[in-house]
Amino acid sequence: MSDEPPSERDAEPRFHVDGAVVPASEATVSVRDRGFRYGDAAFETLRTYAGDVFEWAAHADRLRATCDLLSIDHGLSDSELRRRIDETLVANDLDDAYVRLSISRGVQPGKLTPQPDVTPTVVVEVDALPRGGLEGESVWDGPATLQTVKTQRVPDRAIPARAKTHNYLNGILARLELRIDGPDGPETTADEALLLDADGAVTEGATSNVFFVDDRALHTPSLDGPVLPGITRSVVLDLAREERIPVNEGRYTPDDLRSADEVFLTNTTWELRPVSKVDGIEVGGGPVTPLLSKLFDARVEGEYY
Amino acid sequence: MSDEPPSERDAEPRFHVDGAVVPASEATVSVRDRGFRYGDAAFETLRTYAGDVFEWAAHADRLRATCDLLSIDHGLSDSELRRRIDETLVANDLDDAYVRLSISRGVQPGKLTPQPDVTPTVVVEVDALPRGGLEGESVWDGPATLQTVKTQRVPDRAIPARAKTHNYLNGILARLELRIDGPDGPETTADEALLLDADGAVTEGATSNVFFVDDRALHTPSLDGPVLPGITRSVVLDLAREERIPVNEGRYTPDDLRSADEVFLTNTTWELRPVSKVDGIEVGGGPVTPLLSKLFDARVEGEYY
Repeated sequence: MSDEPPSERDAEPRFHVDGAVVPASEATVSVRDRGFRYGDAAFETLRTYAGDVFEWAAHADRLRATCDLLSIDHGLSDSELRRRIDETLVANDLDDAYVRLSISRGVQPGKLTPQPDVTPTVVVEVDALPRGGLEGESVWDGPATLQTVKTQRVPDRAIPARAKTHNYLNGILARLELRIDGPDGPETTADEALLLDADGAVTEGATSNVFFVDDRALHTPSLDGPVLPGITRSVVLDLAREERIPVNEGRYTPDDLRSADEVFLTNTTWELRPVSKVDGIEVGGGPVTPLLSKLFDARVEGEYY
Repeated sequence: MSDEPPSERDAEPRFHVDGAVVPASEATVSVRDRGFRYGDAAFETLRTYAGDVFEWAAHADRLRATCDLLSIDHGLSDSELRRRIDETLVANDLDDAYVRLSISRGVQPGKLTPQPDVTPTVVVEVDALPRGGLEGESVWDGPATLQTVKTQRVPDRAIPARAKTHNYLNGILARLELRIDGPDGPETTADEALLLDADGAVTEGATSNVFFVDDRALHTPSLDGPVLPGITRSVVLDLAREERIPVNEGRYTPDDLRSADEVFLTNTTWELRPVSKVDGIEVGGGPVTPLLSKLFDARVEGEYY
């Protein structure tokens, strides 16, 4: 991808902060920034294939929805945000990349109550993320183990799950439940935490949507519950429908997952990641996860390469 | 308090960041700091009277409890934290001050899952906060108006309310409900938002604990619900018990507040702030709020002046 010598390629990454590309070590925000003080910020995790942002329109829509919900009237067009992403990718000489785009409410006078006038803090972070695809290797090491946790998903009436914000302690507390003290220090009992709602229904992982397959259909928790409308989730549902796989968005218990034929997780970074165990119980493999993974890769390859 | 000329006194405030006192404009954290990315941080709002931190031991205990709950093993002693606060106060030549002390999990490799090794980011911000007291004027303009909101308090099983963290969107969404479009732009319908739990019980304000008085007792929501164990709340309960005022910590509805004889709010900055209206309904005055305010001031004056 680049003819630059390794010393240049290994240089410090460069991030985009408030309109300028700066070395990562100089990429900072004020301690008074509401993003730091309150997690008062919206973000998107994106990935690029061959230099192009996957499902940009869907991510831009969701970011706008988050900002609307938080009343962060940042005044930046989708194309301006995209321009900053592209500029950051070029500055880092990256084609296949992880991208994190954040918009915080910035610094404001006063304390908790937000002011209508917003001077946002816009941050773009990037990192290399080699593509797996039909021929390559996955970004994940292997199938995931999934563990139901006691930490409940924040209900929509407290903070709507469709808002993707810098308030991530709910997921962090869930992940912390997976940490135990082993003989050689802290160990992790599972790769992903599965959060339930107050009624015990499955919602989602800390950073992923969950799917399962039984003898009837492909299932995933519906967006009526506190579930992020994942972009990869949506693409997978489209692919399944195109393939005439029966799809059901509903309400499920952890038992439905434990007794499923197949379970997998989705997010922008992982794409589709199979699950080998739910709450310590082995999940059998099957044909649907590999088929959908292949269709996903084929779609990426068809669109971006 | 100071003999410096006004030009010096109005100089840029100085904050404490990671062990050093710096001008506020240079007080920054990395965009990779987990405090910015995820609101993955603990904090305390404190105030000083005559240069001394009010209820330092109680605040230090609560901060430690928050860090324990978040597994932020920051390795700093209470006395080291206090030293940084004192250093910041001296650097700003402040005696009566607002202080915000934050400890974030800092920058870590990887994504959401916290690593056990923590290099914390410690920030102390200060601002002048003249004391009201027995003779002076209150920090608040007048009695507060209180408005029940639709945004529900995050349940303890999702994120425990006893943790005081940088995840403050729940309160921000509550405060945003108080904003309406008026003929001359955005207006605020009330000073504080009152959040209920999923069963409709009163919990707390966005940044305050709530008390009310009826013909039987002084009441405040118990800590069994999602309620921050406010330091001022605790001091007020102590003062009431010393004064042999009957005290009840329980579960209440907004109707209990609307029909109360007196309602007031507490937090470190406001101390006790009377409430004049709940959901647009006038609350009658009475003797208990002024008495407790006077006892509070007397305690501050006795201890610190």
